Amino acid sequence: MIHTDTVVIGAGPVGLFQVFQLGLLGMSTQVIDVLPEAGGQCVALYPDKPIYDVPGVPRCTGRELTDLLLAQARPFLAPDAQGQSPLHLGHQVSELNALTDGGFEVRTLQGLQLRCRAVFVAAGAGAFVPRLINVAGLNDLLHPPANVHHHWPLNEPCAGAGQAVVVAGGGEEAVLTVLDLLTRAPADAPASLTLLHRREQFQVEAHLQEALQTHIDRGRLKLALGMPTAAELDSNPAGQPALRALTLLGNDSQEHRLPLDVLLVRQGLSPKLGPLTQWGLALERKQVSVSPCAFESSVPGVFAVGDINTYPGKKRLLLCGFHEATLAAHAALARLHPEAPQHLQYTTTSALLRQRLGVSTAS
Amino acid sequence: MIHTDTVVIGAGPVGLFQVFQLGLLGMSTQVIDVLPEAGGQCVALYPDKPIYDVPGVPRCTGRELTDLLLAQARPFLAPDAQGQSPLHLGHQVSELNALTDGGFEVRTLQGLQLRCRAVFVAAGAGAFVPRLINVAGLNDLLHPPANVHHHWPLNEPCAGAGQAVVVAGGGEEAVLTVLDLLTRAPADAPASLTLLHRREQFQVEAHLQEALQTHIDRGRLKLALGMPTAAELDSNPAGQPALRALTLLGNDSQEHRLPLDVLLVRQGLSPKLGPLTQWGLALERKQVSVSPCAFESSVPGVFAVGDINTYPGKKRLLLCGFHEATLAAHAALARLHPEAPQHLQYTTTSALLRQRLGVSTAS
Repeated sequence: MIHTDTVVIGAGPVGLFQVFQLGLLGMSTQVIDVLPEAGGQCVALYPDKPIYDVPGVPRCTGRELTDLLLAQARPFLAPDAQGQSPLHLGHQVSELNALTDGGFEVRTLQGLQLRCRAVFVAAGAGAFVPRLINVAGLNDLLHPPANVHHHWPLNEPCAGAGQAVVVAGGGEEAVLTVLDLLTRAPADAPASLTLLHRREQFQVEAHLQEALQTHIDRGRLKLALGMPTAAELDSNPAGQPALRALTLLGNDSQEHRLPLDVLLVRQGLSPKLGPLTQWGLALERKQVSVSPCAFESSVPGVFAVGDINTYPGKKRLLLCGFHEATLAAHAALARLHPEAPQHLQYTTTSALLRQRLGVSTAS
Repeated sequence: MIHTDTVVIGAGPVGLFQVFQLGLLGMSTQVIDVLPEAGGQCVALYPDKPIYDVPGVPRCTGRELTDLLLAQARPFLAPDAQGQSPLHLGHQVSELNALTDGGFEVRTLQGLQLRCRAVFVAAGAGAFVPRLINVAGLNDLLHPPANVHHHWPLNEPCAGAGQAVVVAGGGEEAVLTVLDLLTRAPADAPASLTLLHRREQFQVEAHLQEALQTHIDRGRLKLALGMPTAAELDSNPAGQPALRALTLLGNDSQEHRLPLDVLLVRQGLSPKLGPLTQWGLALERKQVSVSPCAFESSVPGVFAVGDINTYPGKKRLLLCGFHEATLAAHAALARLHPEAPQHLQYTTTSALLRQRLGVSTAS
């Protein structure tokens, strides 16, 4: 159980700036994101695309913006005395419970438990979760030690070394994963590698399609074309359920059996509101309704900022989320510390703010 | 008379970003500022002080931020076919008149006349005008060819070459002006130079105070200590009124006469709401009351953004002004082009926005 002033749900650009503003105002915070790295949509969906409308940043990519916001929030992302980082990646928030003392309890699927006095939902379009294969029984096998994976980062040791590996997907993510596996050292490489997709065309640039074809021609990569319709389950040596084969409906309208040791589903990410809809927050068209000046939801103490919220005139722009995070932080300060002076301080002139930022007052 | 979709009053950071957003949404704009350069308070008051809370810009000075915002707005600040820049510096807006066709006429003291369909007041704390010497008759002499000046930029040819020059002021601006005049080539230097201030202490860093003292000790600079109480007027050779001497109440409680050829008043800038109070906009504590989501004033079509406005929860922060400018631009688009599709486009993906920005769609 972690005790903190505030919890930020979502480490996208707006969540990161929320962390900065909360820290600047002297509130401690913990931030949670389902993705394995910070940056939200900016990194998951358009890491290399230029953005032109962040004020004072004439051009940056999604990843560059994330790096800038991480650098800005760094004073408030330092590990605590026990070495625990306040940034919890790979955690999906499952529960938000109001406590009788006016505070909140936040829990994640991965076992994190936090208590706080204000919550900031900066969850963008929802939790970015991998797109699944919609076959009965398959998605129960997603957690280790089962043999179906989504998060198998490139360039990390291969869980399928020496095994029959199937990669499912038709986009860049799947193709890059296959090409990565094909360049592994023998000890780290799969015994066989199959790319599973509905059709022979992949949504990738020409040079990637050509690279695929070269490996296919050399017999190093097999293509399995078709739609999974059933999962053939078995047990692994430890007695736990495991996937042994997929049944595919092929383009020839015949059923085919695709045996495998490891299935890697790389079909991209899809945002899900998920448990957020169960937290008792008033929603409007799948977005959290907030007051237009404090960006507070229908539950006092729970704020929603960025793409997840809605109010009259709302525009889903990064710069609007930054403003929302700022006013929400000030509203939370008034809630957590009603006795504190509420006059606005500036980073150019305030010794207190500069001390919190860790910059000398002389510079 | 210039015809344009929109006029932005104020070329500070928020005014510059207002120009960017209006341009991005396809509206033409003209921007007016009383100061001789863009940047508003950021450049006039803290050009070299670091700012830490602009999202995505971990640290920048006021001048650096201005340069970034000018670069960002550059596609919309290009001169027109006649070579006329849409950025009008050194102009103080004197009149804002509603026209019967729903548009507006904007006039400046310096003779500019514009017609537009929406106005954005991004005037910060008001027009930054030089602090005056409060002596009868003196301020009538402020416009050329009279011999009292405020704007006499450093490093420009000296209007007081070969003459008796008095610089009034006790801060950095006055002291730097004096030190600049003392380093001029003989042909460009005053015949005599006097620094006028109420007391012997100047609000400058120690090294500047020492530099002053060195020049005083060498007899190159005189100090006149006291408070101006009267102006002695005369005519210049062209028959126009000119200041010939100031009467000072000295620290010895005696009156002293300070003869001069040129008076340079360098007492810093002071914001004045000025004519803005006459435009019929509802005000609250000297700020323009606006709706919290469109940032529109009590006069439809006149928006107020940045430090000049107020609404429930308002924080006078740069990043809030950027948000306000953005939503105001969208509200203006709906007013000017009710027929245009109102769905939000993104600079990362919209070919239209990238065309307006002048960036290739491929990059």
